[in-house]
Amino acid sequence: MNIYRYEENPIITPADVKPHRDDFEVIGAFNAGVAEYKGEILLLLRVAERPISHDPMIVKAPVYNVETKQLDIIELRTDDERYDFSDPRVIRNVSKSSTFEYLTSLSYIRVARSKDGHNFTIDDEPLVYPSQSLETFGIEDPRVTQIGDTYYIYFSAVSPVGVGESMVSTKDFKIFTHHGMIFGPDNKDVLIFPEKINGKYYALHRPTTKSTGNPEMWIAESDNLLYWGNHKHLAGLREGMWDSGRMGGGAVPFKTEKGWLELYHGATLDHRYCMGALLLDLNDPSKVIARSEHPIMEPDAEYEKNGFFGDVVFSCGAVVHGNVVKMYYGVADTSMACAELSVQEILDSLKYE
Amino acid sequence: MNIYRYEENPIITPADVKPHRDDFEVIGAFNAGVAEYKGEILLLLRVAERPISHDPMIVKAPVYNVETKQLDIIELRTDDERYDFSDPRVIRNVSKSSTFEYLTSLSYIRVARSKDGHNFTIDDEPLVYPSQSLETFGIEDPRVTQIGDTYYIYFSAVSPVGVGESMVSTKDFKIFTHHGMIFGPDNKDVLIFPEKINGKYYALHRPTTKSTGNPEMWIAESDNLLYWGNHKHLAGLREGMWDSGRMGGGAVPFKTEKGWLELYHGATLDHRYCMGALLLDLNDPSKVIARSEHPIMEPDAEYEKNGFFGDVVFSCGAVVHGNVVKMYYGVADTSMACAELSVQEILDSLKYE
Repeated sequence: MNIYRYEENPIITPADVKPHRDDFEVIGAFNAGVAEYKGEILLLLRVAERPISHDPMIVKAPVYNVETKQLDIIELRTDDERYDFSDPRVIRNVSKSSTFEYLTSLSYIRVARSKDGHNFTIDDEPLVYPSQSLETFGIEDPRVTQIGDTYYIYFSAVSPVGVGESMVSTKDFKIFTHHGMIFGPDNKDVLIFPEKINGKYYALHRPTTKSTGNPEMWIAESDNLLYWGNHKHLAGLREGMWDSGRMGGGAVPFKTEKGWLELYHGATLDHRYCMGALLLDLNDPSKVIARSEHPIMEPDAEYEKNGFFGDVVFSCGAVVHGNVVKMYYGVADTSMACAELSVQEILDSLKYE
Repeated sequence: MNIYRYEENPIITPADVKPHRDDFEVIGAFNAGVAEYKGEILLLLRVAERPISHDPMIVKAPVYNVETKQLDIIELRTDDERYDFSDPRVIRNVSKSSTFEYLTSLSYIRVARSKDGHNFTIDDEPLVYPSQSLETFGIEDPRVTQIGDTYYIYFSAVSPVGVGESMVSTKDFKIFTHHGMIFGPDNKDVLIFPEKINGKYYALHRPTTKSTGNPEMWIAESDNLLYWGNHKHLAGLREGMWDSGRMGGGAVPFKTEKGWLELYHGATLDHRYCMGALLLDLNDPSKVIARSEHPIMEPDAEYEKNGFFGDVVFSCGAVVHGNVVKMYYGVADTSMACAELSVQEILDSLKYE
């Protein structure tokens, strides 16, 4: 696979983003959804900010308060034995080990704009900020599907009651309609196909299951993009391979002559995140035609290997022009990068089922 | 609360049910959905059967095979250290402790019919049997919602990829239409309201979450009963109370002057299952008006306390005639019982929010 990583990589780093409050610092500008709008490429960045702590014994956790419409800042002492601070992303309650109690940062969506796809200017203000009771811990990993002149922006909505997928829509990136939670918890990595297929909308989704099952990819259908059903299991983990630990949709699926091409992420149990591809039937995307035996991209560059959470390449969106796919991707849960790949080479690399 | 438990209780036991195969034994006839059809009360029993093992060192696990349309019988030795057999309901893989690998029984739906609601005759054949790839471990805990002359029957569909809620419909309990999985995994305890409310169908559901959140009740809306969205968190666990460990919908919600009354189950962390009630706004059932401080019924009778999984009362359906609710309920994951309660007394017992 020939991969052209941009010389400018990482194209956006936390240092490029002004925090939205003086008492916060930006620790991530990553996992961006991608849209083309009025001749520009828009990256809908997941910006993660945390309250600055001047005392190393104090960890602060930001929580959006729907009543006051302000953030509450929870302060916890690192020697508080009720909590486990070992994962830098979350604070766990020791008595409920598998779940988290707080996040250490608040994520929201902010736009970066570019005419050439290489050099971006970042908006001063958030584009979509937590505002709902199901978003009090933040909104993460947005994806964007354009259908006609409407952009559907959907993201993980995180709150103490669970992680689900919520959606807003806009025609101008100024006025937004909130559509509520379209996939209930535990769910993330939703990807809505950009057109109806045989009269139905389709979406990939990634339930996180507890009673049985693994973090794998499912597909659902809809009449109106808001209500989803006919859930089917689409693709599972593969023991001993690069996607043996978890997997989920990445970029919005795009059409090729051979089928719908989905660039998805897979990780091993030790959290090394790579990108691969799934080829889905043009007329029935619940059928997998072919799949990557090996990653189409793995963490290799320094900025992919090192960061807030290293060894991660994680795409939430791509721009496809002819045979070239410009895959924008988050690196190390920290920054954004871009790489160009050949659609034909990706198709040729797949193993047919 | 005055509770009239039927003298015939338990009204149906495993001994009343002929196994569907000679080499199987019935271990449960419980958690039945309830329908009124042609002057009879139908209990859509969850029948659980297990392959008879003549060797105490061998545990057999039945798995439906969609290719052969037969059951495969997996045999495991109880001294196989890869597995944990301590929970009689499931076989766990020791390396993946929180999830199960197999079930020890196969559940399907069978009908019991009665003219008086006390004395039931059980059909010889299964009514709904696993037939789909998402049902290979069985189908559990059916509920029935009648809308017009159509009966919607929905149940937990269990397979290695997860537990979700699937649905079939029928007008005559003979010919069924399969509608696929309406709530993706992890989900169970779905209850569809029997009419549209302000132009939308509503359903309660119970996600089982892993990353954060608890086993609590949510509500979703739909245009067509097949596709669901606008998920909202409805009611949560209450520390130190009878519903501190887990909760989920029970009987199909029914209308009273005060609001929609939902008889739900709550359990403590040590798995004592009681029934209580939620009162929901007539025009917007996502609003909780009132709730039981104390259970309306708790395991007390011998048949409720002892069985395959004791200390469980678990209703999946009720018949309401005027002020009397005949609550049919599973006992100890083993048998069926029925108790009559006063709607007015339930309403009077609730604590308003």
